[in-house]
Amino acid sequence: MTVSIKRLLKNADKPSHDARKLHPFYRGKIEIIPKCRIRDFNDFAIWYTPGVASVCKDIQAVPELAYQYTNKWNTIAIVTDGTRVLGLGDIGPEAGLPVMEGKSLLFKYLGGVDAVPICLGTRDQQKIIDTVKILQPSFGGINLEDIEQPKCFPILKTLRKECSIPVWHDDQQGTALVTLAGLINALKIVNKKINAVRIVLVGAGSANICFANLVMSYGANPAHIVMVDHKGILTRERTNIQVTHPDKWALCQVTNGEQRSGGIPEALDGADVVIALSAPGPGIIKPEWIKKMADKAIVFACANPVPEIWPWEASAAGAYVVATGRSDFPNQVNNSLGFPGVFRGTLDVRAQTITNEMCIAASIELAQCIKPSALKPTRILPPMDDCDVPPRLAVAVGMKAQQQKIAGHKISAEKIYRDAKTIIARSRAITTTMMKKRLIK
Amino acid sequence: MTVSIKRLLKNADKPSHDARKLHPFYRGKIEIIPKCRIRDFNDFAIWYTPGVASVCKDIQAVPELAYQYTNKWNTIAIVTDGTRVLGLGDIGPEAGLPVMEGKSLLFKYLGGVDAVPICLGTRDQQKIIDTVKILQPSFGGINLEDIEQPKCFPILKTLRKECSIPVWHDDQQGTALVTLAGLINALKIVNKKINAVRIVLVGAGSANICFANLVMSYGANPAHIVMVDHKGILTRERTNIQVTHPDKWALCQVTNGEQRSGGIPEALDGADVVIALSAPGPGIIKPEWIKKMADKAIVFACANPVPEIWPWEASAAGAYVVATGRSDFPNQVNNSLGFPGVFRGTLDVRAQTITNEMCIAASIELAQCIKPSALKPTRILPPMDDCDVPPRLAVAVGMKAQQQKIAGHKISAEKIYRDAKTIIARSRAITTTMMKKRLIK
Repeated sequence: MTVSIKRLLKNADKPSHDARKLHPFYRGKIEIIPKCRIRDFNDFAIWYTPGVASVCKDIQAVPELAYQYTNKWNTIAIVTDGTRVLGLGDIGPEAGLPVMEGKSLLFKYLGGVDAVPICLGTRDQQKIIDTVKILQPSFGGINLEDIEQPKCFPILKTLRKECSIPVWHDDQQGTALVTLAGLINALKIVNKKINAVRIVLVGAGSANICFANLVMSYGANPAHIVMVDHKGILTRERTNIQVTHPDKWALCQVTNGEQRSGGIPEALDGADVVIALSAPGPGIIKPEWIKKMADKAIVFACANPVPEIWPWEASAAGAYVVATGRSDFPNQVNNSLGFPGVFRGTLDVRAQTITNEMCIAASIELAQCIKPSALKPTRILPPMDDCDVPPRLAVAVGMKAQQQKIAGHKISAEKIYRDAKTIIARSRAITTTMMKKRLIK
Repeated sequence: MTVSIKRLLKNADKPSHDARKLHPFYRGKIEIIPKCRIRDFNDFAIWYTPGVASVCKDIQAVPELAYQYTNKWNTIAIVTDGTRVLGLGDIGPEAGLPVMEGKSLLFKYLGGVDAVPICLGTRDQQKIIDTVKILQPSFGGINLEDIEQPKCFPILKTLRKECSIPVWHDDQQGTALVTLAGLINALKIVNKKINAVRIVLVGAGSANICFANLVMSYGANPAHIVMVDHKGILTRERTNIQVTHPDKWALCQVTNGEQRSGGIPEALDGADVVIALSAPGPGIIKPEWIKKMADKAIVFACANPVPEIWPWEASAAGAYVVATGRSDFPNQVNNSLGFPGVFRGTLDVRAQTITNEMCIAASIELAQCIKPSALKPTRILPPMDDCDVPPRLAVAVGMKAQQQKIAGHKISAEKIYRDAKTIIARSRAITTTMMKKRLIK
């Protein structure tokens, strides 16, 4: 085992090493380019003054036309204040920029979405809300990213209510969506039902709090959910967080039907599922605690870079399905499986918001991206390079938005799928072409 | 003449017609693409988690590294509130978006600069200031655009003072810079000196107020400048604007040494130069008024789409050099000659701000982009497609910033020029390639 860990840690160092070498080489991961014809300088008379004035006047008369005449329909902002970047914590907006550029890269390459990194020079909740509201005219949607809790909850809630464009927090909804998809398939494998299983959530950060709400909407019994934070199991006695962490407090009210107390081992006793989204391990979850879980236990240990328990330790302790956040182990739970397709579908039907129902529809579809016959304990989620995933999620999300009557466009599933395929294929073709022509070195 | 006007107006309609057809075809003029290698999905481990974390930590330790590890060094925001878009007035932020996308196109194609359109959903002066300050971490500079006066003056002044990145208002400094370059060459042609000429400014909007200050810094005698707004000549008696328009009021104090009163005709009597940046004509300036100007009069009638006086009318009335804002007449005074090179140079030397001295250096260099032997009354400015202009302006601006000790980098003129040439050539090659490969249709 020691050898494995050494090898792992060495492997884990390789991307960091390459990143330090390649980031200063490219000096940025994204750029803005024209997407309309420029045959010669006369074309500027169409794209800029004087021609553009006619288009401006049309939009002034009918604001909706901004979606036809500009790139608003396909442009989102990736907004962060840099207070909880990856597992690095509060590193500030400048230091968060490489992550936001990376996210923009993924948005384009996987979903065909144009995403602008916007790192805010404020950590004030109200100012973040005000700024995002002021930024709306240029954008078709907002992806909040890496904002610390507890303020991320009221920020998302307020913006979902008060913005005219959809607002999403990927660390909440995105992670929860993909985690739920993994759980749906894991439950199929162990042949257990969502409403019957006992679920332990280790870590009560933004992702697990959102996941708790999503999995309850999906059918889990709140009384059978037990959440554990760094102070222990959440119970109704945690009145000290009532004001500071209202979203966590709300979960104290409805989860933990038995009112168990203690820590992770007490929570895991007899549990069917553990979803850990807490702090880098190993050793956060001990093998002997896994041993006390129910038969065919499902273990998601998703902290990065090192999971709460090494997957081989979890398996040796009796876990039947094990997932992590890492690409070098089976069953990677990775947000990139979710957000590109979710935004593709949301933008294409012009949904006003992204509802929990749309998230759940995406989870179900993501789970179905693996044929039942192909499901196995080491294969509960499709790989990130399955290029059918984003279009299928776009369809699921877009059709659900139409059912819920929050879509601006009526589009058939076939058309959403076809359009998504086309725009994503074009994104990839651009990069391939740029590399072939040495415009990217 | 009637035929000419009809033909002109018909020609002027062509770009509008094409714009209405082509904007909905392309649905946006810009897009965001990867500019780093993506050979396969393993590269995402470098650009995103886990590899990116190392780069984030480095920036956290040394914030300056954001300029090395991200695209901040080459990214600016084009910020507007849509209150004074082109000649259309207050059409709002959504309707302003096509113009900002067009500007972004020009920034990339002419200057190699990545420019993000940011249309603000507020018209409140303080909120605009606050928002721009909050947006700083992602950007290397700010281009303010199409913000109404008088608030555009305090917005620019405050942001220049309080931002750590350079802030520029193209409708002030950009227009003034190119106008001054045109005037410099026109004066060479008529063989008059800047400190001796009488200059009339028709219109006292943001462009002419900024021009007045710039041309005084360049050497014009304030007493020999007469400004006219829609209420007449500015004098020291205009105390009613003291509070509402402090920048205009400041000019009332120093210009118009004779304290002339009246309107445009009274101002023009005996003047050597008229710079009109006021309202669409024709008929704002009458031929008989031009007749009363000094010998070898210089007339800039720059309102769009129709100049304050038709150029042939001005010539017939005795003007020796005539310039307009239009590409279909000789001597187009066009911002596009200025901002791409100014930002290229500013970003490349990492100037903290864009000083008036840098603007004047750019004006002088822009004037010198035409060889003395090639100067003639119908050729005072280079054409927009002279691809040597932006690199030369970049050098002028970059070297001046270094002289003024406000540059973060020490770079030789040769290197600024060579790098600018390279990055601009690449911008154009991208568009050509995309069109050739049918990624742009």
